[in-house]
Parts: sequence; C-alpha cells; structure tokens
Amino acid sequence: MAKPWATYGVDLHVEPSGPGVRKGLTDALREAVRSGRLAPGARLPSSRSLAADLGIARNTVAEAYGDLVAEGWLTARQGSGTRVADSAVRQSVRRGQQPPTSRPEPPRPEPGRPVYDLIPGSPDLASFPRTEWLKAARRALTSAPHDALGYGDPRGRVELRTALADYLSRTRGVRTDPEHIVIASGISHALMLLGTVLRRRGGHSPAVESYGLDVHWRLLSRAGLGTVPLPYDELGTRTDDLTGVRAVLLTPAHQFPMGAPLHPDRRADVVEWARRTGGLVLEDDYDGEFRYDRQPIGALQGLAPDHVVYLGTASKSLAPGLRLGWLVLPPSLTPEVVTAKGGTDWSCGALDQLTLAEFITSGAYDRHVRSVRLRYRRRRDALVEALREHAPGVRPTGIAAGLHAVLQLPPGTEESVVRSAAGQGLDLHGLARYRHPRATVDPLDALVVGYGTPPDHAWAGALDALCRVLP
Amino acid sequence: MAKPWATYGVDLHVEPSGPGVRKGLTDALREAVRSGRLAPGARLPSSRSLAADLGIARNTVAEAYGDLVAEGWLTARQGSGTRVADSAVRQSVRRGQQPPTSRPEPPRPEPGRPVYDLIPGSPDLASFPRTEWLKAARRALTSAPHDALGYGDPRGRVELRTALADYLSRTRGVRTDPEHIVIASGISHALMLLGTVLRRRGGHSPAVESYGLDVHWRLLSRAGLGTVPLPYDELGTRTDDLTGVRAVLLTPAHQFPMGAPLHPDRRADVVEWARRTGGLVLEDDYDGEFRYDRQPIGALQGLAPDHVVYLGTASKSLAPGLRLGWLVLPPSLTPEVVTAKGGTDWSCGALDQLTLAEFITSGAYDRHVRSVRLRYRRRRDALVEALREHAPGVRPTGIAAGLHAVLQLPPGTEESVVRSAAGQGLDLHGLARYRHPRATVDPLDALVVGYGTPPDHAWAGALDALCRVLP
Repeated sequence: MAKPWATYGVDLHVEPSGPGVRKGLTDALREAVRSGRLAPGARLPSSRSLAADLGIARNTVAEAYGDLVAEGWLTARQGSGTRVADSAVRQSVRRGQQPPTSRPEPPRPEPGRPVYDLIPGSPDLASFPRTEWLKAARRALTSAPHDALGYGDPRGRVELRTALADYLSRTRGVRTDPEHIVIASGISHALMLLGTVLRRRGGHSPAVESYGLDVHWRLLSRAGLGTVPLPYDELGTRTDDLTGVRAVLLTPAHQFPMGAPLHPDRRADVVEWARRTGGLVLEDDYDGEFRYDRQPIGALQGLAPDHVVYLGTASKSLAPGLRLGWLVLPPSLTPEVVTAKGGTDWSCGALDQLTLAEFITSGAYDRHVRSVRLRYRRRRDALVEALREHAPGVRPTGIAAGLHAVLQLPPGTEESVVRSAAGQGLDLHGLARYRHPRATVDPLDALVVGYGTPPDHAWAGALDALCRVLP
Repeated sequence: MAKPWATYGVDLHVEPSGPGVRKGLTDALREAVRSGRLAPGARLPSSRSLAADLGIARNTVAEAYGDLVAEGWLTARQGSGTRVADSAVRQSVRRGQQPPTSRPEPPRPEPGRPVYDLIPGSPDLASFPRTEWLKAARRALTSAPHDALGYGDPRGRVELRTALADYLSRTRGVRTDPEHIVIASGISHALMLLGTVLRRRGGHSPAVESYGLDVHWRLLSRAGLGTVPLPYDELGTRTDDLTGVRAVLLTPAHQFPMGAPLHPDRRADVVEWARRTGGLVLEDDYDGEFRYDRQPIGALQGLAPDHVVYLGTASKSLAPGLRLGWLVLPPSLTPEVVTAKGGTDWSCGALDQLTLAEFITSGAYDRHVRSVRLRYRRRRDALVEALREHAPGVRPTGIAAGLHAVLQLPPGTEESVVRSAAGQGLDLHGLARYRHPRATVDPLDALVVGYGTPPDHAWAGALDALCRVLP
C-alpha cells in the first residue's frame, strides 16, 4: 500500500488513499524538518503543487500543513506562503545531527556487578512465585468490579485491607479492622506519610534505634524531622527513658540489623510510655513472617492498638518490586494519614493490590511463606555450620529470624574484611553503615550478611566466598 | 487432627503433636487474654500441670508461656508464677467487649451513588482490556529477569521507558530516549516530584492556566509553591507575557477543561520564552491519544526537548487504577527529578510497568486506543446530536478531542442546573470548580460533561438525563 515519493529532497511514504494519507504526509514533513532535511526558513511548495506531485487531494496537503503550523514546525503567513519555522529547525538540527557530547551521568550507573551479593534487605528474587501470582492475578482481575480500576479510596483497595486485617490478626496478633489499614508503596512510603503527619503535629524529632536503616532516617529527615537515637546496651535498644519523646520507630520482632527481639521488659516499658504520654510507637515489622527457632513474636501493636502504628510489607515475603506495604493505624491517627496520602489513592496500583488480596485469601501466601521460610532456614543452618567449620572465631548472632545474620568480627577488622570481599567480587555490608551517626554505643566490628539475597544456584558459592574472606 | 480442650474456661484447640501444638496453645492463650476470658492478674496453672491437663510436653507449655511473656500478654515473676499482665488485659477488655462508640468518620463515606455519572476525568472503566492485559502480564512476568522484582532504578523499569520513548516519538512527536524518562504513579505523582524540584530551585510560583484541575494546584501548594493563573481570552490561555515566570503548567494539546488546543501563536510564544529565559514548560498531555477531528496535535516537547517536561499517563487511555504515568525530562533536569523520587524506586510497582511495556511493544496498546477512540467518538457524536435535538440553545465546545465536552449555559444558570441534575441522580460538574481562585477571566456558566465516564449500558440513560436537566 505504502508508496515512496521524493519531493524537495524529502522521502514521503504515504498511502495513496484513505485516512492514512494525511498522517503519512504530516509525519514525513515533521521528520524532514526535525532532521534538518527541510532547512530553516525554507518555503514549502503550495498545497496545490505538492498535491499534484503526490497525486493526492489538495485539501489533504492543506490540512497537513495546518497541523504542522499548529504544532509549530511550520509558519504560514499571508503572502509569503508556508515556510519551515526558524526556531524549531535550529533546535532540531542541533539535536538531530549532533548527538549531545556531554550527556549527564545516568543516575544509577551499573558498576561491574559483583559475582556474589550478600547485601541484606532483599529476599531471593528467584523465589517469587510467578505462576501462582499470575493465577491470582487472573482470578482477581476477572472478578474485580469495574470501579476497582478507577481513582480509588486513599486507604487502598478494600479487598486487600480486609485480607490483611484477617491475616495480620491470625499470624501476628494485630488487632484492627479494614477501616484502619492504609496501603502504601512499601514501608518507605509509609514512613514518608508518617513523617508528614508528625511534622504537621509539631515536628518533634522521633526517637529511632541506634542501629537501623539510614534510608529511613533520611526519609524522616526529608519530611523535616530529625531523628534521635535511643541508647543501646547488651540487651538491645533501651526504652526505659523516653522523656520528651513523642514518637519512636522500632523493629520489635527482629531488630534491624542486630537481630534480637525487643527485650520483654522493654516491650512493656514502651507500651507503658505510649499509654501514659499518648506517645506513638512506629512498629516496623519488615520480616515478621520469618522466624525459625520459636513461634513468631506477636506484634507490639496487639498490646496497644491505640498507640502503635504497625508497618508491614510484601518486600521480604514476596518481592520489593511489588511496592506494596501497609500501615495498621490507631483509629485516631487514620484521618491524618489518609490526608497525607491524598484525597484519592494517587500512589498504589489497584491490580497488584487485588492480586495480593486474592493471593492471601486463597492461602497461596501462607504456602509461599512456609516454603521460603524453610529455604531460608536451611541457608541459615548452612551459614552457621560453615562458620563453625571455617571461621570458628566468628560468632553469628540475630539468627533466630529473618533473612540476615550479624557476624561479629575481631575489633578493627570490619573495614578490611568488607574491602577484601569487594576485591573478590563478594558484595557485603559492614555494620558501621547501620549505626546512627549520633549513636553513643561503642562501634562494633561486624558484618551484616543477607543470606536470603542470592538465588539458590549462587548460594553455595556466596557462602564459600564469605568463608574465604573471614578472619 | 485438631482436638478441643477446656481448661480454665479457655477453649484450646491444639493439635496433639507436632510443631502446631505450641502455636495452637499460644494462639488460644493470647485470644483468651485478649477477649477477657482470662482476667487481669489471673494466675495461670504451672506449666507442669497444664501440660498434664492437655497431654502435651511440659516444655511446650513453658515455651508458649515464654512467647506470651515476650509479647507482653503475660508476666512471669520468681515466686508468683505466670500471670495475665494487667495493662494488656485492661486494654483488651475495653476494646474486645465494648465496640468503640464514637468511631471516627470513614475518610471517604460512600454517599448514595447517583444513578448516572458524567463527572469528567475518568475513562469508561468497563472498557479496560482485561483479557489482553492478563495476556501481556503473563508474557511480561514469564520473561522478566529476576532482578526486575528487586528494588529498582528510581527512573522505573527500563523496558517501559524504552517502549515509551518509541511510542511517544511515533504518536506524539516527543523526542527523548529511555535515559530521560521517569515513571511515576500518574501525573499527580509527577507533579509532586516536579513541585519538590521547583521548590529546591527557589520556590517561585509556577504559572498555571485560568481553568484547570484544583488537585494539581493543591499538589503544587503542598510542595510549598503558590500558583499564578495566566490570563485567558477568547483564543484561550495567553502566553505572550511570562515576565517573572520560571515555570508554566499547560495542557497544550487539549486544554483541560475548555477543550481547545493551545493557539499556534501561543505555542510559539511559550517555546520562545522558554528558550530565551531558560524557563520550564510542564506539558500535561493527559488525553493526547484521543483526538477525533484531526490528526493528533504533536507534543510541544518535540519543539523544545531541553525546556519542556512532557507528562503522560495511562489513566485515560487504560485506567486510573493502574497508577502509571511518565515524565519525559530535559536531560539537565533528570538528575533532580530522580533525586526527588529517591535513590531507589520507592513508588511504582514493577509488574504493571513490565506489563505495560509488553502491552505497548506488542501493539495491544495501539489496538486498544483505536478501539476506545472510536467508542468515545461515537458518544461525542451522540452527545452533539442529542443537544441539537433537545437543547438547541446549549453549545458544546472543546469536542475535537478527549473524553469530555464543555456545554455553555445561559448566564447565571450553572449552579441550578448542577443542583437539579443532582436531585435527579445525575452527577455533573459545573465549570466553576475548574476556575482558578485568582483567575481574572469573567466566570462563564457551563457544564463539563465527562461523556467517557459511564459504561456503555448506562450511556444512553445518562445522555437522556442530561438533556432533561438542560435549559
């Protein structure tokens, strides 16, 4: 159907008839201007003469010219005909013919990938249950009402909030209802929302743990809040003196990265403090599904639902790429968080929410968690065994739960071990990067080993590489 | 397998053996405390005696008690045995037995739904191509590399950025490459990111159109920026005097809500201004796919890629619930927007991004757009025809494109028409709500009719209802 034409040095591929003619002509002329083949200020043939050349209707040419005038590529002036616009062309020629020489650095340059990755914070991405997820997606999307695809409730889809209220009650002892759950794009987004709420409530600096995730501190800081580290001793984070504190961010089930649960006395202290002062506890339950040596430690939220915000995520149990997390809120706080999120859910896609709801209610989530829990537990056991054999001086701690272990090193050796690992293509984090800049606890030399991170086929190699760099 | 026990008034359903025993016992005891069946301060039987009662190992009971002490439900003190904790129980009883009497208002109460919805801004959600989408999701997820499921590039998935660079060049004349596209959760999220960037660049108030979306003005205001309305005359938004302006938000292809494209002279003016002053144009191309009477008006971005941020979305072409939009950025602005989005993509789910990329590259997106464009065009024609017949005094404008029309009303009648429509179950918006509070243009009485919104089966009824309330 398409037929090439050469006119004024411009190759015009236009269909000889039908609605495609005008589009073909417009596209070809636009491209000719953009690429510089039609020079700045050049006068185009009259519509009549181009129409005759091309064997198409004169109106079609006139309309194409009109489109390109409207778009700014051409100018049309009484008496001087249709010409290529000056500015557009200068701009086009510059860009079209000279590839930019000093392109800005790409924001995340991909460095030479290490051979093995033991950075904590990611599950084994190869374990994502693709087939089961697609089945759930099909069931969810097939049965969803049409309005599930519209602009939605700022709290997120009710199907997911309902599924979570049940699931979290059953597995984590969380007490709530779907009305007081808000879906977020992961715990980071949840902390952005809470940061906005806390700033509006007066902007007092929340207390955080001496060891934690710098990205969380930065997110709170972007919301205009400082963070104050709580003291840390041999029993873990201290919560006995929260004088002046209005909000505290904790990882009670599995301290990140140290790995111990919050001591029972200190659980009691923080709940008592919250009740007495109206303080707010932000409970980051990032990997509550993965506990190996004992039953899961129930959520702090279950003890004081009016004072604790429970934060959960699918990032460890399924995959970070889902960008799905949830806040379980004290009823009195819910409207403020909803306001911070916006009058509509501007952030979280409905389809994955519906799919996760179906995944949970169908039992697929429980099955998946059981299956990967077993896999991670075996890795943990292999890690402990390998250390016993190859690095008996290195003590693993925080290993009753989660996807990472802390390996305590001889004083003064952390940096050199991390460096030596990097030199051998093993990506590792030392504990230093998880220590709050204002923490008063003495620095401890250790590695934070994300044994959940590598895919199965790389796990044995990663473990060997780790043993080789340990003192 | 499960076997009920009654002990101390507590129904304990525990499996007689295996790892479930301890969990069953812990759950049952926790529930008994929570519900108040185990009273505050009550002493629990010794682990030895409860174990004997239940016919299970004493260790199991001791471990269950230990879990519940750790969680704060029970207390254990040398010499006084294991007791129900006081605070937990008081709290539990209050919540478990007295449903809260003054529950806060749900954030978005569902009012009595109107029978017909002609609110602009939503496509027909029933037209979402569920089957085709699921097919694309299967292909995308089946072939995605594992690391697509991890914490991702802050710009979004490269597959989608690549598909968009090609699609937008082909259909909208946008000139870019995947490096300078950033995926967002829709245009609102894009404006939040740009608001952050503009505030950091000095916080000058961006110019906006006299008619527009109040949610956009509010989002910019939340970023700490005021908005200044540009003058508006019979040719539309004026861009001839942008003195002192650093950034301007426009809907050049299809002014929202008025419906006209930006006048060619004014297109030229704004591009010239941007080049001369280094000003930034934010081009909101929310429904660029839907043009009926002429070829699509190419994007302004194609004229000045170094000065225009092009904003697009899947909200009109597919569904708002996807929460997917994109920014095409001048190379010099890209790092700032990436910084505003975060060091990682904390916001946009990878699976829908991969699916949309597949949807576009497979041609399904083009087919879908063609199919719904035809459907919407027929509705528009039916609207024009119905007005001619039933309300010849009402002039529809802005109908060459998009999913809505502006119906001009006799002066002073807008409010009463909207109210009378509401009384008859027809949800309508008057033009007044789209007028910037500081606009100087004389208010115009009109309706903004979203003819794309109803599902097919409700469209004829909605149109009849509309004709009945028109003067």
